Amino acid sequence: MTKGLKQKIREQVAPDFEKIEVALEYHLNPNVELVREIASHLLFSGGKRLRPLLMIHSARLCGYNNGFEIEFSLIFEYLHAATLLHDDVVDEADIRRGKKAAHTKWSAPKVVLTGDFLLALSLDIAAKTKEPDIISVIAKITRDMAQGEIDQLEKKGKLDLSEKKYLKIIERKTAVLIQGACQSGAILAKTNKEKEDALSQYGFHLGMAFQMADDLLDYTASAKDLGKNPGADMREGKLTLPLIHSLSNASLKDKDWMQDAIAATEFNPDQFRKLKEKLFIYKGIEYTKNRAQDHVQKAKVCLDGFDDCPSKQILCLIADYSVERKV
Amino acid sequence: MTKGLKQKIREQVAPDFEKIEVALEYHLNPNVELVREIASHLLFSGGKRLRPLLMIHSARLCGYNNGFEIEFSLIFEYLHAATLLHDDVVDEADIRRGKKAAHTKWSAPKVVLTGDFLLALSLDIAAKTKEPDIISVIAKITRDMAQGEIDQLEKKGKLDLSEKKYLKIIERKTAVLIQGACQSGAILAKTNKEKEDALSQYGFHLGMAFQMADDLLDYTASAKDLGKNPGADMREGKLTLPLIHSLSNASLKDKDWMQDAIAATEFNPDQFRKLKEKLFIYKGIEYTKNRAQDHVQKAKVCLDGFDDCPSKQILCLIADYSVERKV
Repeated sequence: MTKGLKQKIREQVAPDFEKIEVALEYHLNPNVELVREIASHLLFSGGKRLRPLLMIHSARLCGYNNGFEIEFSLIFEYLHAATLLHDDVVDEADIRRGKKAAHTKWSAPKVVLTGDFLLALSLDIAAKTKEPDIISVIAKITRDMAQGEIDQLEKKGKLDLSEKKYLKIIERKTAVLIQGACQSGAILAKTNKEKEDALSQYGFHLGMAFQMADDLLDYTASAKDLGKNPGADMREGKLTLPLIHSLSNASLKDKDWMQDAIAATEFNPDQFRKLKEKLFIYKGIEYTKNRAQDHVQKAKVCLDGFDDCPSKQILCLIADYSVERKV
Repeated sequence: MTKGLKQKIREQVAPDFEKIEVALEYHLNPNVELVREIASHLLFSGGKRLRPLLMIHSARLCGYNNGFEIEFSLIFEYLHAATLLHDDVVDEADIRRGKKAAHTKWSAPKVVLTGDFLLALSLDIAAKTKEPDIISVIAKITRDMAQGEIDQLEKKGKLDLSEKKYLKIIERKTAVLIQGACQSGAILAKTNKEKEDALSQYGFHLGMAFQMADDLLDYTASAKDLGKNPGADMREGKLTLPLIHSLSNASLKDKDWMQDAIAATEFNPDQFRKLKEKLFIYKGIEYTKNRAQDHVQKAKVCLDGFDDCPSKQILCLIADYSVERKV
């Protein structure tokens, strides 16, 4: 089923996807070779181009046909890459047990500056839209993401994170960027406030679902599918919804055991397997799946006011895919 | 003389200066206390507010009178603060002999994220100008500064930096931001291209003079005036114009001695004193002063086409001050 969904989306977005790849490469033409190398390493390692595709189809759904949606959609891929690079530095500093993220090939200063460079690239394209509201969206995204990361840094290792605080963290960490891409598509198309809000809300719910699915995969996916060992969030001291919900439902004894397992300094595969069992027993997995599905449903409802068209179909498929994907 | 100049500028900009301070404080109202704390530490430690003042008076010189120049001028103080924070992280990583910059009170991730937050604040205000060209200016500044810093990182410790490459580095590191502030004032006032270019060029030359004066002070100022030990650039492996010019003029024997002194891992006050003597003997100090003065003259010539007014006087005074200051 999931493979079918993925295949379906791929087929429908294939022409745009290729144009995005070409344009990403074309605009990445800085004078400093090192910037190019670091940026390319991240940008051309098989990204889904979710954010550009969302902006393109949001714009088209609102009737945009001025021909610049591919170029303008790069705003959100470069911005996404910039935030990933800065997050790398943030996570690197908090690495536990001396393990460095595999993709950290360069020093922190170089990574920070390359992030700044990509943000500048994003801004440069955004200025070309001549839409100040898109700049405001980018400012909001950048501010929220920075605040969210700082918030998460402060909360790391805390075993009593509430669901409410978790939701605020993932909103800032993931949803605002996806929301901003969809909203900017609507702004570009100069649509009315109602449709802009609908697409903004679609993006918000999609982003929330997307991050919840990510947090689920960290417990349920295989190391092979994930490309890294499962349980990474827990080992980095990040409590996510499957754990938060299970902890709140667990017996006192199991809660104590789980908290010890989370706080353990040595990774123990048997302990991790047992912890995962608890997440099923105390319904953390099921609950997170349901919350993610709720967001998918809400996302799709936001599209109700739009006439049926290929872009609407794609946005619906992407909503379904956000929680059904295996990676 | 210098004190008189400083006093004169202070008196003339006093009302704007106070309004800038109030506005900087007002806009710095994030939800995360830590961001506020780190940003405040940098923003409210006695800044000259050079960049906002330049934007304000460039705008007024071009006849702007819509009343928002104070608020919009914050763009360049927040942007400046953001780049300083990211530079902190860059310099920290390359610290030599285990000495950490005194102002580095927080971890690199927090400093990077606070920099991102301030950049977002800058963008948010820039979006309110509804001038896409100002966004393009910010994008260019951010890109150039990131590239310049990376370039400087790569060149660190190299003893054969040419004057040409030095000029490119200081242009990106300092001049583009000052240039951008002046140019944006002109854009805000919706003046003609000729006047916008004139103010942009004024800012470029002012920025070059400003950085050369900074590089001179690192050798000629007292530790007390400087607030840190002189010779910091050299100890960080950064070759600046006084050294570059002296090296190119020195006898082979003295050149060898100087290169050894620069590359020395231990700081030796006697050696530093002797090195400074060489900078006078081989005219590195004099040459740098002259080049800085050339830029000041060129900056002032750029203002010729404007009618006389208080803002023109202030911009002229700032140009003179840029090389005559003691700190």
